[in-house]
Amino acid sequence: VRRAAPGEFQLIQRLASKLWEGPGVALGPGDDAAVVHIGGKKVLLTTDLLIEGVHFRTDWMTPEEIGFKAMRVNLSDIAAMGGFPRFALISVGLPPAWRARKAERLFRGFYKAAREAGAAIVGGDTNASDRLVVNVALLGEAGGRVLTRGGARAGDSIYVTGELGASALGLAALKRGRRGFEGFVRRHKTPPLRVNVGRVLAKIDGIHAAIDLSDGLAGDLGHILEKSGVGAAVDVDALPRPGGFERAAERLGCDLLSEMLSGGEDYELAFTASSRVKIPRKISGVPVAKIGKITPKSSGLRWLRRDGTPVKGGIIGLQGFRHF
Amino acid sequence: VRRAAPGEFQLIQRLASKLWEGPGVALGPGDDAAVVHIGGKKVLLTTDLLIEGVHFRTDWMTPEEIGFKAMRVNLSDIAAMGGFPRFALISVGLPPAWRARKAERLFRGFYKAAREAGAAIVGGDTNASDRLVVNVALLGEAGGRVLTRGGARAGDSIYVTGELGASALGLAALKRGRRGFEGFVRRHKTPPLRVNVGRVLAKIDGIHAAIDLSDGLAGDLGHILEKSGVGAAVDVDALPRPGGFERAAERLGCDLLSEMLSGGEDYELAFTASSRVKIPRKISGVPVAKIGKITPKSSGLRWLRRDGTPVKGGIIGLQGFRHF
Repeated sequence: VRRAAPGEFQLIQRLASKLWEGPGVALGPGDDAAVVHIGGKKVLLTTDLLIEGVHFRTDWMTPEEIGFKAMRVNLSDIAAMGGFPRFALISVGLPPAWRARKAERLFRGFYKAAREAGAAIVGGDTNASDRLVVNVALLGEAGGRVLTRGGARAGDSIYVTGELGASALGLAALKRGRRGFEGFVRRHKTPPLRVNVGRVLAKIDGIHAAIDLSDGLAGDLGHILEKSGVGAAVDVDALPRPGGFERAAERLGCDLLSEMLSGGEDYELAFTASSRVKIPRKISGVPVAKIGKITPKSSGLRWLRRDGTPVKGGIIGLQGFRHF
Repeated sequence: VRRAAPGEFQLIQRLASKLWEGPGVALGPGDDAAVVHIGGKKVLLTTDLLIEGVHFRTDWMTPEEIGFKAMRVNLSDIAAMGGFPRFALISVGLPPAWRARKAERLFRGFYKAAREAGAAIVGGDTNASDRLVVNVALLGEAGGRVLTRGGARAGDSIYVTGELGASALGLAALKRGRRGFEGFVRRHKTPPLRVNVGRVLAKIDGIHAAIDLSDGLAGDLGHILEKSGVGAAVDVDALPRPGGFERAAERLGCDLLSEMLSGGEDYELAFTASSRVKIPRKISGVPVAKIGKITPKSSGLRWLRRDGTPVKGGIIGLQGFRHF
């Protein structure tokens, strides 16, 4: 997961080539998690830094919710690689006004999310800070094959789990101080857990690439295309949307497609699979929707209506386009 | 390593008992690193969060120095457990004014320290922040036995590596804007690398406990006593001090013993060994000094002069005493 600061990707990618050398490193920076070898096992490593005022607001979220979400965001990275979350390290910078009891509520949030996913919190670092800072580092074990961003092939079908855009609408409601959007707000505060889905995907031959949707489908599918050297055609009418989405978007004055494609923080999985593989409609109880095709790189990334005509106008901030 | 915020230890220790359950966890929070089992290997996990204005000042340290020190501080935790540092994850919150080139200098600092110690940086997270925030999570492999805080026995001799108090004097010089203390300032900015020493210690039978000195000998030896259920008598005249220490402390108006015992950030190792074990005067080229004896718990922690009389007065802020 990377919630992008401007220029971040360029910086990281330039530095990454220098940084990822070393014995035992199978996959360095640039995917949802790094892959290293330890004692004959493939181990997944990921980390996320969340800063008050940048990634969350303490007036919108309780300490439990902040801790829970911080852990879920990291679990999502392990899920996208098809791994088992195992061990977490937590660093916290606590504002002076936070007494131990409030901090404990934050820790309970971490703990609840970790436990649910079978991971243990094994250590951490607690410090003073002027604003709340939270870092989670999570170690997972590969569940057989490791799913990466880099394996998509022309002809693959593209799938997403769950629904897109609910978190973005929830955030919009919070920003505007609007009531009556509790389901969407809950979705913004509580990213889904897709570890079981990822583990099933890792066992299906013919699944070629996967990513978790943290920045929105447009940007994150863009990462798959970039790493895999392919293009894509997405049927925007096939994107899975939550119940009441159109009406809620209208009431909030949000553009439907922009929220679904670039709103971010869905924390669903997107993956590509050979068209010969039959993907069930549900995996581990989670709906899976076919939304498009991987194409040759020369075709770029195209957003199409069901009848095959390109989407025109009305899509604001489609980050995916920037990558091509 | 824990640079303590008030009440931190109480909070963490209370929470730790709830948190460290889970299969594969051999040692949870409360030591320099956690120990977990992966694929038949003992793996060490540690993390440190450093925040501008709390742990470092950007007007005192260059980006390279900040990155280098942040990595060394984590390497110190792996050294104290007798492990090999292997893989690091780095999270950075960059202030808006930090352009990519400045960030790259920070990353070079991380990289230099990691590479020197045989560790690879495998991933990270970069974000916007109002002030510089740095988190390093480091994975190590155990080098045979794992050294912990919990094994000291009455009758053990107590040893420390290198010298104590130099970093504290360097910090005092920086705080007072005084020149002419470059050696001490360098030591404050550049914690020593004691990984090789720790690996040798892990191979010596009869070494019972070890810790890295981040908060100062008084507090950190206190952790060994607490975890091991023992007391100690320390000969303060045997504490290894840097050349020119007395004169520099006097010029800066610093109390000699306070700086050596509670100044913090020495990042040397303290360890205890059965009195039957012959500890060489140097390990991996680093001087090792015998500074005292582990005693029964009932004796508490005593600071003695060479002639056996207790130290009286003049010791300010001896954190170790708080633990008893």
